[in-house]
Amino acid sequence: MRKLNGGKPVMPIFMTGQLMPQITVSKIKISHWREESLCMEGILGANRKISGMNFLDMLSAAERQNGSLLCVGLDPEPTKFPAGLKGDANKIYDFCARIVDATADLVSSYKPQIAYFAAHRAEGQLERLMEHMRRVAPHVPIILDAKRGDIGSTAEQYAKEAFERYGADAVTLSPFMGWDSVAPYLKFYGKGAFLLCRTSNPGGDDLQNQRLASVDGQPLLYEHVARLAQGPWNLNGQLGLVVGATYPAEIARVRAIAPTLPLLIPGVGAQGGDAAATVLAGWRGQGGVSTGTVIVNSSRAVLYASSGDDFETAARRVALQTRDQLQAAKPQ
Amino acid sequence: MRKLNGGKPVMPIFMTGQLMPQITVSKIKISHWREESLCMEGILGANRKISGMNFLDMLSAAERQNGSLLCVGLDPEPTKFPAGLKGDANKIYDFCARIVDATADLVSSYKPQIAYFAAHRAEGQLERLMEHMRRVAPHVPIILDAKRGDIGSTAEQYAKEAFERYGADAVTLSPFMGWDSVAPYLKFYGKGAFLLCRTSNPGGDDLQNQRLASVDGQPLLYEHVARLAQGPWNLNGQLGLVVGATYPAEIARVRAIAPTLPLLIPGVGAQGGDAAATVLAGWRGQGGVSTGTVIVNSSRAVLYASSGDDFETAARRVALQTRDQLQAAKPQ
Repeated sequence: MRKLNGGKPVMPIFMTGQLMPQITVSKIKISHWREESLCMEGILGANRKISGMNFLDMLSAAERQNGSLLCVGLDPEPTKFPAGLKGDANKIYDFCARIVDATADLVSSYKPQIAYFAAHRAEGQLERLMEHMRRVAPHVPIILDAKRGDIGSTAEQYAKEAFERYGADAVTLSPFMGWDSVAPYLKFYGKGAFLLCRTSNPGGDDLQNQRLASVDGQPLLYEHVARLAQGPWNLNGQLGLVVGATYPAEIARVRAIAPTLPLLIPGVGAQGGDAAATVLAGWRGQGGVSTGTVIVNSSRAVLYASSGDDFETAARRVALQTRDQLQAAKPQ
Repeated sequence: MRKLNGGKPVMPIFMTGQLMPQITVSKIKISHWREESLCMEGILGANRKISGMNFLDMLSAAERQNGSLLCVGLDPEPTKFPAGLKGDANKIYDFCARIVDATADLVSSYKPQIAYFAAHRAEGQLERLMEHMRRVAPHVPIILDAKRGDIGSTAEQYAKEAFERYGADAVTLSPFMGWDSVAPYLKFYGKGAFLLCRTSNPGGDDLQNQRLASVDGQPLLYEHVARLAQGPWNLNGQLGLVVGATYPAEIARVRAIAPTLPLLIPGVGAQGGDAAATVLAGWRGQGGVSTGTVIVNSSRAVLYASSGDDFETAARRVALQTRDQLQAAKPQ
């Protein structure tokens, strides 16, 4: 198996002085990147880094151990909880922990979405859930879905929240404010950061699908983000991309631009994305082993598979089916 | 004084069927917007809505009452706190509340930045601070700086967090995921939403300053966001824009595209933006009364004006100076 970030940068751009072709960057910007690169100091992230495994190592190991490309998204909505828990925001931890217990051997990662906790003053429950996941599924990395995007000094605070407070192994980010809104997360060596690239919601077209006149080759905005993430922004091989499952052709386009980045792909299941088409478009590997993997997220279809007492069994059944569909679609 | 949103939509686009010139929208997208518009149900936001004042009413009233265009940004960093509070994350509320007490008659708004609370597990302190501001400065609106940006169902959770849990009067948002990541906030009638448009950090150029080949007139990305916010996205006059203070020419450009939207302008003070140039570029009004106002944010220059026991006096002095500079720059 190829280690994507086994101690050496995957894209050692600032060592070789090379840039990805077709990327328009000013000298000022390159110098800015260099400076950031040089002044980076390793910060020991919480928990996992101690074991020496970075996010991509963990992801590969979980993918292998559980034979899975499936990520279960933890978007707890008390109104959808099964009888006994229904409507009770104090049961968010209990519900999510039971889903984790039922699926820990079936997933390559978990993805708690922080808004669903914040809306219910449930940050304490999220902290407990993170601990629970580390305890019962120590081999499964956790992606905190927060889509943060802010200037450097504020980004540092958000990075502390994600990696120190919650001990997440990776986080989702918005690229709208540019490089220096991403860089602070990369100072946490070994942690992953997934940039929003092409989202599958109806409004995803509004900005992401615009064609850029001012960049060589006139890429679409999302293609430009993919180039930046595969190239000059990916200082230590920590970046990935978020690409919606609705349009497999766009997953394939992103994969062509970013051959090795892990793609986090929401939208399979309740949102209608096709599991097999997603894997075919996005997964790359040899002999069944990933060289450019996909993390296919399903949230509601798993969490709310049943509203009865059998919700854990039902969640496990759906997770198993989805895992097997995804696995079967991998070219061997 | 012209009420920007006194019960009637400022831009009743979907009543007249007119669209802003030069905005490229597909029929599908218009129909999507219409549908959203029609199915919107008024949701009573926390606290302020009860008094019948919406965000823009409150902002105008505070601007008039305090003779101010100044927003004090609340970005608490315990390491920068004065002696006696320094380094103690449990004193975040105390520090911020004392800054508020010292400046409540000098500002048109406050802007707590949520990352600085979340990094320290201080959501409870933020809740108390919001209550404190409503009590000692009931005439001053509060903008929760969170820069959220996510799909509809998740955006609903973030909107609940901002408007119900914290009782904010407005929130900052990222437009990267498009219209349906913004719409859920507008269902909270009377609440404001500021979209990131042109940010003044070094990486602000990376995406925002790209020229769009696929939109009529080939605007820059940030100009396109300004058009959308002034035009088809602004269903009920609730939108504003975030524009950095570093480049007054770009503030003027945004103002030309969005003549009536409130502009939230960070970067004056510690970040080096020039107060007078900012007002000249962005503020529009007659007889000293705003028709297109600016909300000029200063955070660190006010908060950390002194590291001694006199920090409240020093904060007040800097806030007063900045307020007077801004006020003096308003054309009469």
